[in-house]
Amino acid sequence: MEKMAPILSIENELFRIYIFYACVLALKVLIMSPLTAMHRFKNKAFANPEDVVTLKVKPKIHEDVERVRRAHLNDLENIVMFFVASFGYILTNPSVGFATMLFRIFTASRIIHTLVYAVYVIPQPARALACATGYAVTVYMAIQAILHFI
Amino acid sequence: MEKMAPILSIENELFRIYIFYACVLALKVLIMSPLTAMHRFKNKAFANPEDVVTLKVKPKIHEDVERVRRAHLNDLENIVMFFVASFGYILTNPSVGFATMLFRIFTASRIIHTLVYAVYVIPQPARALACATGYAVTVYMAIQAILHFI
Amino acid sequence: MEKMAPILSIENELFRIYIFYACVLALKVLIMSPLTAMHRFKNKAFANPEDVVTLKVKPKIHEDVERVRRAHLNDLENIVMFFVASFGYILTNPSVGFATMLFRIFTASRIIHTLVYAVYVIPQPARALACATGYAVTVYMAIQAILHFI
Repeated sequence: MEKMAPILSIENELFRIYIFYACVLALKVLIMSPLTAMHRFKNKAFANPEDVVTLKVKPKIHEDVERVRRAHLNDLENIVMFFVASFGYILTNPSVGFATMLFRIFTASRIIHTLVYAVYVIPQPARALACATGYAVTVYMAIQAILHFI
Repeated sequence: MEKMAPILSIENELFRIYIFYACVLALKVLIMSPLTAMHRFKNKAFANPEDVVTLKVKPKIHEDVERVRRAHLNDLENIVMFFVASFGYILTNPSVGFATMLFRIFTASRIIHTLVYAVYVIPQPARALACATGYAVTVYMAIQAILHFI
Repeated sequence: MEKMAPILSIENELFRIYIFYACVLALKVLIMSPLTAMHRFKNKAFANPEDVVTLKVKPKIHEDVERVRRAHLNDLENIVMFFVASFGYILTNPSVGFATMLFRIFTASRIIHTLVYAVYVIPQPARALACATGYAVTVYMAIQAILHFI
């Protein structure tokens, strides 16, 4: 098997799918930076004195900025672990269809998480459910990889 | 060498060991989320207004929550860099035994770090030593990889 | 092509270059920890009660510490996404020269970002330009990988 089609190769369909979703998720995380900047400018809420010299205001904290920053940090906590857990998971030789479904569920859950947390706030448990869904996928994949390579 | 057994292949023992420890560490980081949630519920200390609607309290900061969050962020700062540094390190073709020992020391140091920081607080220098041990391993591996691929 | 020289192999020049810059960047991020510690000791500004037992002061926040911590978090937000986006990008079989140039621009932009943010503060738009340059490189690489593997 391994000799016919190495797993970590662009000849392997699942590896290509993994790279696609990993880069979509990386781009999603990167979008949080201009989103934070937008709220900083809108509310004149900057963190550093050198950022507000021309605005003639003091550095300050604004809840809209902090909300986007919390969403951003939550991304780092969850999406970065997904990168690793799913990398380990594709090495366990799972079915392409099932693994792709997991990648899609995770990606969708994180996009929904951002939308309901940092774009248009929707009452709980919207955010909790989005977060828990992606979390369950990541934990499942990490455990599968651990059991496979123990 | 490379033609006989590609390094980034599940046929390579060290790569399998790397994946195992990387996924154990990813799982360790993921556990910080429910640990944070537990302290949030216990102390009714949530960050967002929509989280406390039914509790009829205001968002607030609690030191027990902040402590777990600091431990979580410290994980991101250190464990994510380990993922990269150790990935580079296994490509330098180190001895399997020595590399495995480094992975074990790092993993143990990070688990101890979490225990003494966020589960049962033990006086310093317990946490500083745990953090420094894992840090030294990561810096060593990153430098080895840099020197090898310069 | 793929059969002649697998992309994810130390026989592939661009992969070796990728590993080199990834580990340089990991080391750069790691340096933020002793930089933070230095400012904590200098200003006796620690986050935890157990850290200040012998100093006989209370945990406190100091702006110099917070500045380094913001730079550190900004690294995580940007450099970790670079790790993933550039990994995807090298799998699109780009020219070695152009990809190497992108890696160098990103690495330089992040080192400059740290210097003007957390070592010697220079008026804006120094930091904004450094951040935007690295950001543009990462977004470009992520989009190239997404378009290639869609």
